[in-house]
Amino acid sequence: MNRVAVIGVGMSKFGEHWDMGFREIMAEAATKAVNDAGITGKDIEAIYGGTMSAGRFVGQEHVGALIADAVGLNPIPSTRVEGACASGGLALREAYLAVAGGHYDIVVAGGVEKMTDVFSEQAAITLGGAADQEWEVFQGATFPTLYALIARRHMEEYGTTEEQMARVAVKNHANASKNPLAQFPFEITIDKVLSSNKIAEPLKLLDCSPITDGAAAVILASEKVARKFTDTPVWIIGSGQASDTLALHDRKDICTLNATVVARKKAMKQANVKPSDINVAEVHDCFTIAEICAVEDLGFVKKGEGGKAEEEGMFDLNSDISVNTSGGLKACGHPVGATGVKQAVEITMQLRGECGPRQVDKAEIGLTHNVGGSGATAVVHIFSR
Amino acid sequence: MNRVAVIGVGMSKFGEHWDMGFREIMAEAATKAVNDAGITGKDIEAIYGGTMSAGRFVGQEHVGALIADAVGLNPIPSTRVEGACASGGLALREAYLAVAGGHYDIVVAGGVEKMTDVFSEQAAITLGGAADQEWEVFQGATFPTLYALIARRHMEEYGTTEEQMARVAVKNHANASKNPLAQFPFEITIDKVLSSNKIAEPLKLLDCSPITDGAAAVILASEKVARKFTDTPVWIIGSGQASDTLALHDRKDICTLNATVVARKKAMKQANVKPSDINVAEVHDCFTIAEICAVEDLGFVKKGEGGKAEEEGMFDLNSDISVNTSGGLKACGHPVGATGVKQAVEITMQLRGECGPRQVDKAEIGLTHNVGGSGATAVVHIFSR
Repeated sequence: MNRVAVIGVGMSKFGEHWDMGFREIMAEAATKAVNDAGITGKDIEAIYGGTMSAGRFVGQEHVGALIADAVGLNPIPSTRVEGACASGGLALREAYLAVAGGHYDIVVAGGVEKMTDVFSEQAAITLGGAADQEWEVFQGATFPTLYALIARRHMEEYGTTEEQMARVAVKNHANASKNPLAQFPFEITIDKVLSSNKIAEPLKLLDCSPITDGAAAVILASEKVARKFTDTPVWIIGSGQASDTLALHDRKDICTLNATVVARKKAMKQANVKPSDINVAEVHDCFTIAEICAVEDLGFVKKGEGGKAEEEGMFDLNSDISVNTSGGLKACGHPVGATGVKQAVEITMQLRGECGPRQVDKAEIGLTHNVGGSGATAVVHIFSR
Repeated sequence: MNRVAVIGVGMSKFGEHWDMGFREIMAEAATKAVNDAGITGKDIEAIYGGTMSAGRFVGQEHVGALIADAVGLNPIPSTRVEGACASGGLALREAYLAVAGGHYDIVVAGGVEKMTDVFSEQAAITLGGAADQEWEVFQGATFPTLYALIARRHMEEYGTTEEQMARVAVKNHANASKNPLAQFPFEITIDKVLSSNKIAEPLKLLDCSPITDGAAAVILASEKVARKFTDTPVWIIGSGQASDTLALHDRKDICTLNATVVARKKAMKQANVKPSDINVAEVHDCFTIAEICAVEDLGFVKKGEGGKAEEEGMFDLNSDISVNTSGGLKACGHPVGATGVKQAVEITMQLRGECGPRQVDKAEIGLTHNVGGSGATAVVHIFSR
């Protein structure tokens, strides 16, 4: 198995891009990554692109070929992968597997979604495509209601409070205020979260990640060629992917995302690290309760202690483990297919020491955690300098 | 690079499945493949699933996890890949790359589409997602009109006739009449094709592949484990994938699908075979003109000679190269995401000698050729006994 490095990263501003098309947003991120790596298009041998629902958001499938075309790289192989909101993480993993397996030396992993071209009702229906249509969505479930069930159960089982959930949003907005590419680069307060409109109780508007346009890209290289292009490769030392039931009601315990647990164990075993070795992590906070479950399922704290740990600031910038320094899905934004790749962009920049006011001190080992739907897909990657 | 074998195959009946859901169709094909391989679910380490547009056909994204769930295989990794009508071919290729790269020993590659749950206008719009939305579909193009442009140009450049195109449909229906799982298992005549309703001149109804529900699955295994389960492994000896411009108008020559040419050359170089070594091939005949282009771009005949070769019966069953013995997309049916995997099912059965009345004599080397849209993605695989 070849070692694989990230040698270049790029992302678009996350937000509402009324003035840019789907392909322009992706091309911007890819071009930044190519320039950052110091390579040219001729060096690239394949593309993996993550997008959840370009078919329903912008009427476009066949997105792999579209990306290769938009960036002028045909006839190289270009493949779209999809796992709902974990599409970007899956693109990263497929690119990693292809380079690690010796098929290519330089591959682009990209992610893109343009979500604001449809009305918000249509966006909600489209995002529902990540849940079980026949057994959940046709019965009236939406993603906020599914995560609200998880939140209610977590409150009941472990005494987690709405204030603790709000604290996640406050932390992630504080981080986003230091990230010029974030959709919401401003701070909020616990009171503001608690008094925001109720979406699906106990979740309020400011417990929820937004609808976002955006793209991100990373350039992966085999060890053989990585050092030709960079003195600061960031190595992918572990990759894990797992699945779970699509419908929440089929799970033994809805407070545990088993796919996260399995993917984390695989990735950490490969990387030979334990949870306490992680200095900086981007985790999947599509709702504030999701970050609380994530820090538990990733082994950062015991099950049930995530809310209290958030309240005590354990995951604040430059605390025990700095979580969601980009602002997370909550405040950096959540263009669903791009999120998993953006997480890798942020961790790479942290490990290179390029994050300015949100830089984590002595960041040596980083982790990304990307989830599809209510947890039927999870992808975890571990990075080191 | 590990050698990779197909050790099991399965497919559903292709047609209209009003009585089965998306997941049931996929589960049927997967179960048949697992039984054919003589493995159990516990042997399977990962799934790759191809589907083009489940989001728009059945409201369901996140299809990788859905498949793992439907067949009871979570928490193993399960990833959807998409490349329009080449989605199945891409799933096969990703599964092949993962096993060849040493990441897994046994992987399922599946493909599925349920297309008949929407009205035909909606199906046409959804299939348009394979073309360039902004530059083609928004201007009024549909797939029959795009392939009609190719047909008109081919007639102008090379003297190809409507009768020669009709001959492709006649051959493929004759093959389908010997395939109990085909959507249209009956013969037709050249007159019947020529007098069928005009869709986009010069293409008539019987020049076009149909709207289909269906699924197919193959089990891939590394050399290390393949022989534990079968005495008749079918080896994948070459895999090639390439891309082209999404929009037809950006190509130098619309009669040549450059992605097919590039993918074929890569696959044949890896396999160390030449076009004349192929005994049996499943090629992408979404329209009759597409098969004529395919036999040229695959190197079976020179550019421009495909129509004449079809007319002379060069690709009939047990002629020079038996092409589309399953009935092809035209008559076996074209559930878009499943087609590329069904091609591998047919070639595996041919190389094992299990095709009964449509069996090709002395089939040693087979080829599959799967195309996305009007040729922006092409995937070619070479198989041998």
